[in-house]
Amino acid sequence: MERVAIIGVGQSEFGELWEKGFREIVLKAGIEALEDAGLEGKEIEAMYVGNMSGGRYLAQEHIAALIADYSGLSQMGIPSTRVEGADASGGLALRQAFLSVASGLHDIVIAAGAEKVSDVGSEMTTDIIASSADREWEGFVGATIPALYALMARMHFTKYGTTPEDLALVSVKNHRNGALNPKAQFRREITIEDVLRSPFVAEPLRLLDCAPLSDGAAAVILANEKVAKEYTDAPVYIKACTQASDYLALQNREDITTMRAVKIAAEMAYKQSNLTPDSIDVVELHDSFTIAELIAYEDLGFVEKGRGAELIREGITSLDGSLPTNPSGGLKACGHAIGATGIRQAVEITYQLRGKAGKRQVDAETGLSLNIGGTGATAVVTIYEIG
Amino acid sequence: MERVAIIGVGQSEFGELWEKGFREIVLKAGIEALEDAGLEGKEIEAMYVGNMSGGRYLAQEHIAALIADYSGLSQMGIPSTRVEGADASGGLALRQAFLSVASGLHDIVIAAGAEKVSDVGSEMTTDIIASSADREWEGFVGATIPALYALMARMHFTKYGTTPEDLALVSVKNHRNGALNPKAQFRREITIEDVLRSPFVAEPLRLLDCAPLSDGAAAVILANEKVAKEYTDAPVYIKACTQASDYLALQNREDITTMRAVKIAAEMAYKQSNLTPDSIDVVELHDSFTIAELIAYEDLGFVEKGRGAELIREGITSLDGSLPTNPSGGLKACGHAIGATGIRQAVEITYQLRGKAGKRQVDAETGLSLNIGGTGATAVVTIYEIG
Repeated sequence: MERVAIIGVGQSEFGELWEKGFREIVLKAGIEALEDAGLEGKEIEAMYVGNMSGGRYLAQEHIAALIADYSGLSQMGIPSTRVEGADASGGLALRQAFLSVASGLHDIVIAAGAEKVSDVGSEMTTDIIASSADREWEGFVGATIPALYALMARMHFTKYGTTPEDLALVSVKNHRNGALNPKAQFRREITIEDVLRSPFVAEPLRLLDCAPLSDGAAAVILANEKVAKEYTDAPVYIKACTQASDYLALQNREDITTMRAVKIAAEMAYKQSNLTPDSIDVVELHDSFTIAELIAYEDLGFVEKGRGAELIREGITSLDGSLPTNPSGGLKACGHAIGATGIRQAVEITYQLRGKAGKRQVDAETGLSLNIGGTGATAVVTIYEIG
Repeated sequence: MERVAIIGVGQSEFGELWEKGFREIVLKAGIEALEDAGLEGKEIEAMYVGNMSGGRYLAQEHIAALIADYSGLSQMGIPSTRVEGADASGGLALRQAFLSVASGLHDIVIAAGAEKVSDVGSEMTTDIIASSADREWEGFVGATIPALYALMARMHFTKYGTTPEDLALVSVKNHRNGALNPKAQFRREITIEDVLRSPFVAEPLRLLDCAPLSDGAAAVILANEKVAKEYTDAPVYIKACTQASDYLALQNREDITTMRAVKIAAEMAYKQSNLTPDSIDVVELHDSFTIAELIAYEDLGFVEKGRGAELIREGITSLDGSLPTNPSGGLKACGHAIGATGIRQAVEITYQLRGKAGKRQVDAETGLSLNIGGTGATAVVTIYEIG
């Protein structure tokens, strides 16, 4: 396998982008990534696009061809492929792009992720997001995604003594970080009381335990190590990018306080990169709900099962802790632009490892990102290292 | 790159499968492929799934996780990835699976394609299929997919003298072949008069110029050459599997009688396989509309631009001609189960090269398949050879 480096990153703003179309936000992210890399579109050899539900949000499938067209890349005829795994779609695009360079097939590839959700109503949005879970066994009987995560939280409370205050601390931390990120959707701090006074969405999860669903796009340009050196003095190497699956419906899982796909993908990623959880300096993970961040601490091997809350209580995952997690603000404060999120995480890790993360900069030479689809049936773990 | 062989193939029936669910038809195709290969599910290392619009047909995204779950493959945690490129989704799944074995990453991978379209009404189906074209520049102003292909046909008539009778001959041939295929949706012959008396869908295209939209699934199992030999005495090698893009909207293309993505993908495939159009013995191509088959003859290099109709007039592409094309009956008679079609084509070529195609058997050692997305913005060309 060839060594693969990130040589350019870009992202649009995340949020309710009423005045912008899907094409515009994708193009903005792509152009920013090209400019960051200092290369021209015609040097790109292939494109992978992560998008969950263009069919329902935009009445548009064939999204990868659309983006190749609008960005001018179809003039060269390059292969452009959409991948989908609910809100892990961005991570899947990153992984397919990584594999296409690691295998020696291509030298320079772009991975993008995008979603435009604002143009449909909130009821339809709830239904679309529920299509990331099992429609026949979960959605049809009324389970929404917040409701399914609420079951996981409730079980975590019962088995391990995790509390609503622990969940609130996750949200408070991520908002504190997001306040330092110019591209975050919510750039303001909140308090534990704010979280605990916010209305229930699905008990015990309150409004401020839930990431927003956002419009947004992000892009990264990957290159073979040899080519990368022509474009950048600070290549961020991808040491591993692994993917695993779990049962789609919660009812089939042995333990709903664990995401088995995360554990499997993480174990593979550590093995492939010859790293251990201890050696990771910065983490971007999938806090679609606060409980998901605590479960991820455990399943990524940072702490043993059931003790995730200790990391947030003790400030270990704060910006000034020993394992800063979601320095960007995470999904909670950055916004969760579904298919874009997995790519946005790679953008943040790249900024951090380059030392270009501004006020939210941490001290880091290695990074890890975790992107999850739905309630964890798909997981992608990526490990990065500055060259 | 490692040599990649098809070691197992399977497909469900195609058609209006009212009594079967999406899961059942996918599972049927998958189990048939496993039995054909003589292996167990736990030997599969990864899965790629082609599906165009589960979000709208089934209110279900995250289709690859669903299939991994329902087939028991998520028990092993293997990566399962949906790819989408409109009705080229199956071809994209085949290509990603091919690349994952060719690169040495995996030894045994399954590529599946599936679509369940019957459960929504025909008006919605028309709109969903239109989402494979450019929604903002084409669909929004009323252009349907048949209407866009009608423009291509009209231009081909004007520039090259192709006639409605030529189109009808394509449909007659494909129905004649389909009548010999037990898994075809339409197993009856039709006449030129039947076609020319059928109602217009979008002038000059009539009902019998158009492939149906069908429910169906298909699966192929790919293996590294070394592994393949443990499972089969008749491996069908994939010599090349290439993909290219074109502008999504017809308005941006220089010439709407050519599908540039097909030309680019075909040229790459011939080059990679060290073969020429002359050396191809059997073809499965994307006759979503009769005009698409004639244009494909030209863009695949079997005849020069504008002279596609000669191949059908002279019987060259008939079952007993020198370049038998769509021996399965093609999309027209087999049915077009959108995301499944690219995989179904690989299934047919495999049967043909193994000499197991029953009454529709042709004499062939090399084969080619062409899978197209929408009006040609995505094209996948695959070249096969019996081992």
